Amino acid sequence: MERNTVSLFDTIQTLLDNKRYSTLRDILNTMNPVDIAAVFEDLQSEKTALLFRLLPKEIAAETFVEMDEDTQQLLIHGFSDTELKEVIDELYVDDAVDLIEEMPANVVKRILRQADPQTRKEINEILKYPEDSAGSIMTTECVILRPKMTAEEAIKRIRRTGIDKETIYTCYVTENDLTLIGIVTIKTLLLCDDDEVIENIMEPNVISVNTLDDQELVAQMFNKYNFLALPVVDKEGRLVGIVTVDDAIDVMEEEATEDIQKMAAITPTTDKPYDRIGVFETYLARIPWLLILMISATFTGMIITGFESALAGSLVLSAFIPMLMDTGGNSGSQASVTVIRALSLGEIEFKDIFKVIFKEARVSLLCGVTLAAANFAKIMLFDRLVLHNDNITLPVALVVCLTMVVTIFIAKLVGCTLPMIANKLGFDPAVMASPFITTIVDAISLVVYFEIATMLLGL
Amino acid sequence: MERNTVSLFDTIQTLLDNKRYSTLRDILNTMNPVDIAAVFEDLQSEKTALLFRLLPKEIAAETFVEMDEDTQQLLIHGFSDTELKEVIDELYVDDAVDLIEEMPANVVKRILRQADPQTRKEINEILKYPEDSAGSIMTTECVILRPKMTAEEAIKRIRRTGIDKETIYTCYVTENDLTLIGIVTIKTLLLCDDDEVIENIMEPNVISVNTLDDQELVAQMFNKYNFLALPVVDKEGRLVGIVTVDDAIDVMEEEATEDIQKMAAITPTTDKPYDRIGVFETYLARIPWLLILMISATFTGMIITGFESALAGSLVLSAFIPMLMDTGGNSGSQASVTVIRALSLGEIEFKDIFKVIFKEARVSLLCGVTLAAANFAKIMLFDRLVLHNDNITLPVALVVCLTMVVTIFIAKLVGCTLPMIANKLGFDPAVMASPFITTIVDAISLVVYFEIATMLLGL
Repeated sequence: MERNTVSLFDTIQTLLDNKRYSTLRDILNTMNPVDIAAVFEDLQSEKTALLFRLLPKEIAAETFVEMDEDTQQLLIHGFSDTELKEVIDELYVDDAVDLIEEMPANVVKRILRQADPQTRKEINEILKYPEDSAGSIMTTECVILRPKMTAEEAIKRIRRTGIDKETIYTCYVTENDLTLIGIVTIKTLLLCDDDEVIENIMEPNVISVNTLDDQELVAQMFNKYNFLALPVVDKEGRLVGIVTVDDAIDVMEEEATEDIQKMAAITPTTDKPYDRIGVFETYLARIPWLLILMISATFTGMIITGFESALAGSLVLSAFIPMLMDTGGNSGSQASVTVIRALSLGEIEFKDIFKVIFKEARVSLLCGVTLAAANFAKIMLFDRLVLHNDNITLPVALVVCLTMVVTIFIAKLVGCTLPMIANKLGFDPAVMASPFITTIVDAISLVVYFEIATMLLGL
Repeated sequence: MERNTVSLFDTIQTLLDNKRYSTLRDILNTMNPVDIAAVFEDLQSEKTALLFRLLPKEIAAETFVEMDEDTQQLLIHGFSDTELKEVIDELYVDDAVDLIEEMPANVVKRILRQADPQTRKEINEILKYPEDSAGSIMTTECVILRPKMTAEEAIKRIRRTGIDKETIYTCYVTENDLTLIGIVTIKTLLLCDDDEVIENIMEPNVISVNTLDDQELVAQMFNKYNFLALPVVDKEGRLVGIVTVDDAIDVMEEEATEDIQKMAAITPTTDKPYDRIGVFETYLARIPWLLILMISATFTGMIITGFESALAGSLVLSAFIPMLMDTGGNSGSQASVTVIRALSLGEIEFKDIFKVIFKEARVSLLCGVTLAAANFAKIMLFDRLVLHNDNITLPVALVVCLTMVVTIFIAKLVGCTLPMIANKLGFDPAVMASPFITTIVDAISLVVYFEIATMLLGL
């Protein structure tokens, strides 16, 4: 797809330079708004307003929604009030909210001034909800039916009012006070008899979320139940909006990216794609964790210093430090990352902690024994027989292998426990991933190593 | 949601034990098939067949699809041929294919024997496509319209044939030879005049995928274009099926989980949730990478051994090894994980490699200088002044800080380059993540450290 956008981009730019506007309009007409938006983002800023005016009105708003915030701001800057009003009127409420959340205060004021009073009220309603809540990602535009309507009346209503609704495929049945009592899909409406009454064909057991529920829960529900839209209700069970599947998909990708970033010790600050994030912004997202982890790692260094005399007595021991630390860190990461992902997808929760620990304990013993055996064979056969390294004695090999088993056991337990505890305490478990675990496990594995060495080698 | 399932589970089990079947049926009727399936998975195996027979026919098949493969196999085992046929007939073709892919050969034979000839043919068609291709996740059931139909005729056709289609919300317009020439949504059909002709209202610029395209591309397209369904065409542009958004969501979650697993050095073997994967299976997914990484880490050990004399001369240097290795590893992971995620989401591709390297180089210098400065301050103020550690001299501090800058620079470059090269060579970039990068960077950082130390300290 990327490739198409690129070669087309040159054509569009040439046509724009040569003022071949009608040809341009024909080309734009064949394109998806997402791809048109990509063209805008690469265009010189002075040409964006011109190209935007060439867009057929019905796709102009759709294209606008797909642009990055810099391009949007640039365009709004060049819009007359009438042009701005035309775009705002075409936006779905949730898209208008997204736009407002990203614009600076003076632009927001201009946008709200151009929105009609009803839309402005709905936008302000949604803006009240906390960030990352179901309320903040919902749209208020949905088809509402009454329980006593017939299927025919319902379809008529949809035909009359559907044009402004983000989805008409799931319709919501409410009492007069907007209490949600059922849902009915347009598939059901079309496939039943015209005179069927809604309350007899609707699905009365509605799965919904509350306005204040976390958007991650919303994404989990879509993933679990295969919905196209999910109703959002207030504390009293009244319908206030819906989340559509496209927004849920954005949340899923965003949450997965955030988890991955946190697992790699990066502060998730933005949902912009890689190539749109500046060097300094990238630096700021990465440096705090590097600093924290560097300082923690100095404690590991202090442990080595503390055992300096032991090390001086048996220098060969220091050659195994990287391998023991790395293996411990890797084992711990495997457990922590697996548990974090399972928590994210809602597969396990805090009450399963003992089951998780029991399982990870067994896995860790299997892994520990396997690696210790492989390591023992390697030391005795390769290091001693092939490399003739006489410093590596049988006791040294035993110390290394025993440390391996103990370290992996501790690493897996720390790795699976910390994310679950973090989750229970209301922190994001993802920050308990690899780097953090590695630092803790490094320190533990060194202490274990030197203690075992002191015991067995009598240093 | 989990909590509901659990308490309900006890009620259902009690009712089942007390043979209160009509009450049970009432309860099942209020539940979503996904939640009913969860009940089955926790039920004693001898009771599953009984509970399944209590399900209303229309939700029995839907529930069956949502169960894990063990429960499905158990049920099929207990089914009479007639019961099996009833379930198979109700399945969408893509769900039938999923089922067949997970069942052992003898069960597959029984299933195919019960399927009607047309379904059997369609199942076999889909089974031909390679795993993880668009063809393998599509369904063949979609609404096909002709260009010369009117909107009214189209709606009539949907009402007549729609019941068996997985989605009726997007309809596909084809020529007689099934060449895909446009799509039209049911929203358009309902909101236009009855006598509009399809070819005038359809969207003729259809975005589609090829049967052999990777499922990751399919997921990217849904993410980018907000589709509810995506048509799949063969080499000649003929419509062979559609992928619906719920299947695309499964692919997204599966691909994200796989990426996360690979980043943590775990072989992705299964899409089962954490609590359904056995200890030995978990062990097998983790041990190969631990072994490989352990062996690679021994090379790091050999580097330390190689510089043993240098270390003996200045033992204080070894105290900084963990910090330098960890910081290098963390810096490399940050770059690699960011680049891997951007590749997965289609934000960057191989041709951007120089842009990526240039950006990471600048970020790495900023990070390196910051960390080196922090480290220098810590060494001179804390280690020397507070701890009175006289072994740590100004030259030692300079060696450590210089190594820091160089290591981070190399770590970030290795971290961003390897995944992109892996991707270009057709490997999965995710295996080039943290553990792999860490091992490489460890070795590099040690060599840099000892080289700089040898130069500056004259060891």
